[in-house]
Amino acid sequence: MKTIKIGSIGLGRLGYEHAKNLATCVPGVQLTAICDIDAARVEAVKQELDVPYGYTDFEEMCKNPELDAVAIVSPSGLHVEHIRTAMEHGKHVFCEKPLATTVEACREAEAIVAAHPDLIFMLGFMRRFDKSYLEAKKKVDNGDIGKVILVRSYTQDSVATIEGTLKFAPHSGGQFLDMCVHDIDLIRWFAGSEVKNLWGIGGVFAYELYRELNDGDNVCVMLQCENEAMGFMFAGRAAAHGSHVETEIIGTKGTLRIAAVPASSHLEVMSEHGVCRECYVDFLERWHDAYVTEMCTFADYIRGIGKPEITAADGTAVSRIAYRCKESFETGKMLPLE
Amino acid sequence: MKTIKIGSIGLGRLGYEHAKNLATCVPGVQLTAICDIDAARVEAVKQELDVPYGYTDFEEMCKNPELDAVAIVSPSGLHVEHIRTAMEHGKHVFCEKPLATTVEACREAEAIVAAHPDLIFMLGFMRRFDKSYLEAKKKVDNGDIGKVILVRSYTQDSVATIEGTLKFAPHSGGQFLDMCVHDIDLIRWFAGSEVKNLWGIGGVFAYELYRELNDGDNVCVMLQCENEAMGFMFAGRAAAHGSHVETEIIGTKGTLRIAAVPASSHLEVMSEHGVCRECYVDFLERWHDAYVTEMCTFADYIRGIGKPEITAADGTAVSRIAYRCKESFETGKMLPLE
Amino acid sequence: MKTIKIGSIGLGRLGYEHAKNLATCVPGVQLTAICDIDAARVEAVKQELDVPYGYTDFEEMCKNPELDAVAIVSPSGLHVEHIRTAMEHGKHVFCEKPLATTVEACREAEAIVAAHPDLIFMLGFMRRFDKSYLEAKKKVDNGDIGKVILVRSYTQDSVATIEGTLKFAPHSGGQFLDMCVHDIDLIRWFAGSEVKNLWGIGGVFAYELYRELNDGDNVCVMLQCENEAMGFMFAGRAAAHGSHVETEIIGTKGTLRIAAVPASSHLEVMSEHGVCRECYVDFLERWHDAYVTEMCTFADYIRGIGKPEITAADGTAVSRIAYRCKESFETGKMLPLE
Amino acid sequence: MKTIKIGSIGLGRLGYEHAKNLATCVPGVQLTAICDIDAARVEAVKQELDVPYGYTDFEEMCKNPELDAVAIVSPSGLHVEHIRTAMEHGKHVFCEKPLATTVEACREAEAIVAAHPDLIFMLGFMRRFDKSYLEAKKKVDNGDIGKVILVRSYTQDSVATIEGTLKFAPHSGGQFLDMCVHDIDLIRWFAGSEVKNLWGIGGVFAYELYRELNDGDNVCVMLQCENEAMGFMFAGRAAAHGSHVETEIIGTKGTLRIAAVPASSHLEVMSEHGVCRECYVDFLERWHDAYVTEMCTFADYIRGIGKPEITAADGTAVSRIAYRCKESFETGKMLPLE
Repeated sequence: MKTIKIGSIGLGRLGYEHAKNLATCVPGVQLTAICDIDAARVEAVKQELDVPYGYTDFEEMCKNPELDAVAIVSPSGLHVEHIRTAMEHGKHVFCEKPLATTVEACREAEAIVAAHPDLIFMLGFMRRFDKSYLEAKKKVDNGDIGKVILVRSYTQDSVATIEGTLKFAPHSGGQFLDMCVHDIDLIRWFAGSEVKNLWGIGGVFAYELYRELNDGDNVCVMLQCENEAMGFMFAGRAAAHGSHVETEIIGTKGTLRIAAVPASSHLEVMSEHGVCRECYVDFLERWHDAYVTEMCTFADYIRGIGKPEITAADGTAVSRIAYRCKESFETGKMLPLE
Repeated sequence: MKTIKIGSIGLGRLGYEHAKNLATCVPGVQLTAICDIDAARVEAVKQELDVPYGYTDFEEMCKNPELDAVAIVSPSGLHVEHIRTAMEHGKHVFCEKPLATTVEACREAEAIVAAHPDLIFMLGFMRRFDKSYLEAKKKVDNGDIGKVILVRSYTQDSVATIEGTLKFAPHSGGQFLDMCVHDIDLIRWFAGSEVKNLWGIGGVFAYELYRELNDGDNVCVMLQCENEAMGFMFAGRAAAHGSHVETEIIGTKGTLRIAAVPASSHLEVMSEHGVCRECYVDFLERWHDAYVTEMCTFADYIRGIGKPEITAADGTAVSRIAYRCKESFETGKMLPLE
Repeated sequence: MKTIKIGSIGLGRLGYEHAKNLATCVPGVQLTAICDIDAARVEAVKQELDVPYGYTDFEEMCKNPELDAVAIVSPSGLHVEHIRTAMEHGKHVFCEKPLATTVEACREAEAIVAAHPDLIFMLGFMRRFDKSYLEAKKKVDNGDIGKVILVRSYTQDSVATIEGTLKFAPHSGGQFLDMCVHDIDLIRWFAGSEVKNLWGIGGVFAYELYRELNDGDNVCVMLQCENEAMGFMFAGRAAAHGSHVETEIIGTKGTLRIAAVPASSHLEVMSEHGVCRECYVDFLERWHDAYVTEMCTFADYIRGIGKPEITAADGTAVSRIAYRCKESFETGKMLPLE
Repeated sequence: MKTIKIGSIGLGRLGYEHAKNLATCVPGVQLTAICDIDAARVEAVKQELDVPYGYTDFEEMCKNPELDAVAIVSPSGLHVEHIRTAMEHGKHVFCEKPLATTVEACREAEAIVAAHPDLIFMLGFMRRFDKSYLEAKKKVDNGDIGKVILVRSYTQDSVATIEGTLKFAPHSGGQFLDMCVHDIDLIRWFAGSEVKNLWGIGGVFAYELYRELNDGDNVCVMLQCENEAMGFMFAGRAAAHGSHVETEIIGTKGTLRIAAVPASSHLEVMSEHGVCRECYVDFLERWHDAYVTEMCTFADYIRGIGKPEITAADGTAVSRIAYRCKESFETGKMLPLE
């Protein structure tokens, strides 16, 4: 098994997670380089994870001939530029969601990817690599639950991380672009159909900051697909019990539910509060294994094992829907996708 | 404790359930009379439940001076007429949902009830009397979950009872009027607010009959309340695992979920299928205790203990929303309530 | 359906529960008389439940020709005397567990019952009438789990009721006779075999009073049956989360578990404590339906529908085992049943 | 972080798991050498996992000066010899359970370890490194559940793997030495006390082979600790629903339960079988993360971070208890530990 050498850009919270995973948990992969505008941070992580090269300039990193691929975990506004640079230097690309911050930019990214058919491009919808979601998808594809009727998907962050959430809020793109994109991806994936109509609503129930941002702290969207399948999403910023991502697929012959109780372990605690399951503290705890599997799969794609299921076009489609949800929320109108 | 004497009209599936409960499970109540257009059925149930009087004419029953009250479990189209007759004869009235089959008729019923302020009028939204729902409402009112953000409510019948469901379909009024009224009632109850906007969608996923009826076999509605609280309903005709009524109330400080796993007992079965919980076969099994508690409460109201929380106006409000959902589904438009 | 007229003796906590159930929840049964040594209590309950006759003398009650049957919920030490008196006056007998307070007295009770073959005698192991246990037994008898390997049964009272528990402790007969008899009954019922050897252990972990009583506040017993099936019991006085009675039957083809989470309703609460199920407060809340079903079944037996499955001999067998457990606990020895 | 170089002996099922983990999932560790008597197997795994050195002679491997440590996953009967050889060559040692196949050999191993106080010795009770068990232990040590009353621990293999189980049976040492040692370790760990008395029982319920081996296919042991805490173990060879390892710790202030439903993912399946959780197929799936964490911890110990909590003396203690359980089962007697 050839060692795949990867350079990673972005050392924020998720960027560091990916870097650490690439350095320590992904068999057959070496984290060969890291890049961030913060030179001190680059140096520190380079030391900690024993990374051969450190950069503050992305293009410089892309010029490193040792690298097979790059992982883009930079701010969303830079994704397209980074995809272009990396591909022009012949690197395979893993790009975190969202593909880009506007639909036009998404289309641009699509074009870049299309122009490099020999390079792997993979978009980071990590939920698809979670054991439970993989198992659910297998059952749906196998016809175990018949025809898909409704996909319901929730994304709730924990109140335990609200401070960071609020700090990030002005730069997040809002609930629909930041949180709902994952649920939109899942709804399309499980329903196997394009969205036709949607209506987004929401409100400011606890954190006034979101009103200033013309956003809600809790929002819902209902979607209607071309094939009549239905979708429902809920995104919330501050669940009392923890990080709660739940997806349900109701079919004509059965129903699948993932993480209705987002228990962080097999432990049950019986106390004066009843019989309790403690839940995931944050998304990093919830998705650790999925992030690792995602990168293992990326390496496999590079080795020629399998092909990316999530294309740049999916990234565009998801972003289009997310923007349309936002528009629906802002105008109060039910909207067709077009 | 004075014995409350009740006459019950309608001996269909639910009518018989109510009759049997009144005859055998409601302390301090006597099922003194029954009425149905089917004379043989009246005679059989009279014998079985040891009921003093049997009638085929409702007004005749209402003339019986022994009766304190009547329970109306007749076809929905007759509810208003039966409410009028009963109240004009001075009887307290328990009426099954829906209040009536049109909004106008509902308003008529409201007027009749208003004209008899000394008589108890109670509408049969039995879910409110279920132990789990009562406990949930207590917590919501107590502020345990903070401000209500979203009320999600599912009503799924079991595929095990699909034959009866299909037979009843043409007379049911459709998903929104037949099934969703319960969920609408719960959403208003828990959100503590009126509905402002709604969008209903759905499809025919398994049973073509519903297409002929201009209905769906599975439908969803998203609702927006005056106070920004959100609602989501799903109604399905044929769940593989059983009768599944689930309600979730997400608040700013916590979330309550009722019957996410509608297990019919405390039994877990570990087998080649995994660790399984068997579910309710039908709504009568699910709601038996609630139907009994409902009637106990009705008797209490008559005794002067407590006052009906569900008014005729609630019945009208629920029906208005249900009709609007149907209109939304049929026109494909998001609609304001007015 | 002939009305069965029952007189009930004992108006303590469970005695009152039975009286109330007989008066209000058991179709076709009338609570015709009550008896207790406390005349004021008799009068109060007579009024509250609208009972025709009240007595302070049990034999007087048994002389009442209207009565078909009596329910004996008196102190355990009086059971045999009361069974004798009732049967000699031709009354069917329901007797609460335990059959008697010594094995000799149990055998005496057996003889009395044997001398009145035309009268129904039923012993109050109410767990057998609980929906979950009935369903489990059906599956075991049906061979669904193959051959029974292990029956594990827990009985834990809630710490919420510890005050009453401690007050009652000196008169309870100890853990083995008071609590474990139910579990012993279940083990014999599910294993379908007699106990061969047993070892009882325990300790005083929280309540010193039990040391004075030569008892433990938490005890365990392991049992070996004639057919190689194994049993394990745990009895505890003060569980933090509520009243917890759990039974597991492990078979060669599957496993059944009853009330592993003794949730008192379908409500899940998501809060800072995680996702929690609130539990039964006490045994009366847990077993209400079983107590009612038990009495319905007793009435059916009297009507000739079905025959008591639990015989006086079962009562003796259970008591023998319970005494032997106590002896094992006190001597520290593993003991054969004989 | 210095890279720890490890040589691993034994490439059976678990040996391969450890080798693969060391090669791919343990940060800061290199699987530098492997050893097995099967030369072809050594070569194949060497290639697959890109291991620098391969051996068929353990002492040769121990002479490799690059190695910091060895992992012993050889047949249990060779453990002591391998520990001696490794330590005499100055290698840190990780040894799979059991420490040895007789109590005398265990004591010999203890002496070897004692003679090399500068070398890390760690025994492979991996359950202690599972997230749920770690969390439970933290709560117990923190006093969250008060004083420990009962530790119940189950180990059931899945019927899906019965063929391999039966093949391995003659060499396994029997239920008590093969399966129960894990549960014994957990009981001592959670109870924080030594075992005083025990009684082991069991039977042949499904697989006659075990009778020939003077063993049972399902066995139970009850234990009494010095501090009055109680223990109960159940070991079964063929659970219908999967690999089921469950541990419960009942304390005076609360109860902890680990993996009461050994669900292999967050997926719930609603179908005609009810609401089901699919379970772990085998122990490798169940304990994958714990095996990795265990090796990460071993590497940390070598780096001077933390000290082994499980000593050779624990290995001896567990084996003594396991042998005593076997003796109790064979003689039918309750036995003191001595």
